[in-house]
Amino acid sequence: MYVISERVNGMFKKVKKAIAEKDKKAIQELAKKQVDCGSQALDINVGTAADDPEKAMVWLVEAVQEVTEATLCLDNPKLEVIKAGAEACKKPFLINSTTAKEPDLGQFMTFAAEKGASIIGLTLDEKGVPNTTEARVEIGARILTSAMEHGVPTDKVYIDPITLPINVAQDQPQKMLKSIEQFTMLSDPPPHIVIGLSNLSQRCKEKSLLNSVFLAMCIASGLDAAILDPEDELLMNTMITAEVLMNKAIYSDDYLKAYKA
Amino acid sequence: MYVISERVNGMFKKVKKAIAEKDKKAIQELAKKQVDCGSQALDINVGTAADDPEKAMVWLVEAVQEVTEATLCLDNPKLEVIKAGAEACKKPFLINSTTAKEPDLGQFMTFAAEKGASIIGLTLDEKGVPNTTEARVEIGARILTSAMEHGVPTDKVYIDPITLPINVAQDQPQKMLKSIEQFTMLSDPPPHIVIGLSNLSQRCKEKSLLNSVFLAMCIASGLDAAILDPEDELLMNTMITAEVLMNKAIYSDDYLKAYKA
Repeated sequence: MYVISERVNGMFKKVKKAIAEKDKKAIQELAKKQVDCGSQALDINVGTAADDPEKAMVWLVEAVQEVTEATLCLDNPKLEVIKAGAEACKKPFLINSTTAKEPDLGQFMTFAAEKGASIIGLTLDEKGVPNTTEARVEIGARILTSAMEHGVPTDKVYIDPITLPINVAQDQPQKMLKSIEQFTMLSDPPPHIVIGLSNLSQRCKEKSLLNSVFLAMCIASGLDAAILDPEDELLMNTMITAEVLMNKAIYSDDYLKAYKA
Repeated sequence: MYVISERVNGMFKKVKKAIAEKDKKAIQELAKKQVDCGSQALDINVGTAADDPEKAMVWLVEAVQEVTEATLCLDNPKLEVIKAGAEACKKPFLINSTTAKEPDLGQFMTFAAEKGASIIGLTLDEKGVPNTTEARVEIGARILTSAMEHGVPTDKVYIDPITLPINVAQDQPQKMLKSIEQFTMLSDPPPHIVIGLSNLSQRCKEKSLLNSVFLAMCIASGLDAAILDPEDELLMNTMITAEVLMNKAIYSDDYLKAYKA
């Protein structure tokens, strides 16, 4: 599983404050902690409140890059903000995200191809977020086709079926699982499949349990990446156990320790 | 989910001792605890050490029946032992289990039909335990056909794909999940699908985590019953959360409490 940390995000109060006050140390400590807990990549999101999102993105990228080798996942709906962050990136990065709306889709794919970047494509188009498996798969296929047309290789594409909160959309998790299963058959090699996990349990009481159980199910369906909080121990232990059960990590009595090492 | 307690089993030292010493109170306390923790049925197994398994089965059934209304699941490979227990049962019971070996299969089904009992059929035949999805499904279909021929209605049949220990058969959980998914398509209405969960983590260090994560995956694949230890809180909370995620139990912030009540 490719673990992308969700925490370096201006939507969280502490991060918002650190961005506003240019508190580099706070950001760097957060980034290091997230990597120590098992993140291979760090989502970098300036939030909606930043005065100058392009400047804030560059500052965040530079701050984080000083303390970690982890891949950065530049997260903004505006290509201009992504482009600003990309300029500051010293290594290959991930773009989070494009939708299937045109002209965005083509523009994002053109940029990803130009930079050799990986890119997350949300199954969302002019009609909004689909609530059926079929529509998700159809949009996923459209994103993948656009990637191919623009020269982004399949293994750099991450399809995201969009996680909806369980407290308002209880019929959706089943459809997401079916979508994930079908995404794995869209191409050969298949695209990566990613979810932003925490949306599932927004404003729920049993966040950790809901996120953990759903992540296990998604991994069984073919998910190979997730944006999540690796500081949640139950969640990480569940993820590792799911990998072992799916025969993607070797079983030993100390498989948790072995994986973390 | 139909929860069948695994603990009233002579393979456990304390239960073996209680059977040997005719310590009715010990058995009854265990049975009550298991029901309080969420068991709807209780597996009743005299173990292999009982001198007279038929007598021990009758004693166990009578002891448990005095303190609970839960369904009893008479567990023995020998039909004679099941029959002895059945005589003592005051209510409809479950038979655990037949294999697909003849003449056993026909004899067990004849008895189940005669008594109006439910029956667990293990996907195991003369060739042993299959290690492919296809063979499990083929044997499952054979069990279901035999049930129909003998007059056992589909909704009284529980197909068990046989859980193998992860530490010796790491390639099997994936195949079990596929088998479960395919069992749901064997008939309309489909048979029930059950697993003996704890086999998965026999002699493993992370028993609770392995059992919990696999149970979540199985529920997503269509499992609707399990023989397990309901005193494992992570396991039960995972099971309830999986039911909520599959839209089979209603979400509320206090869904754990609501389910347990």
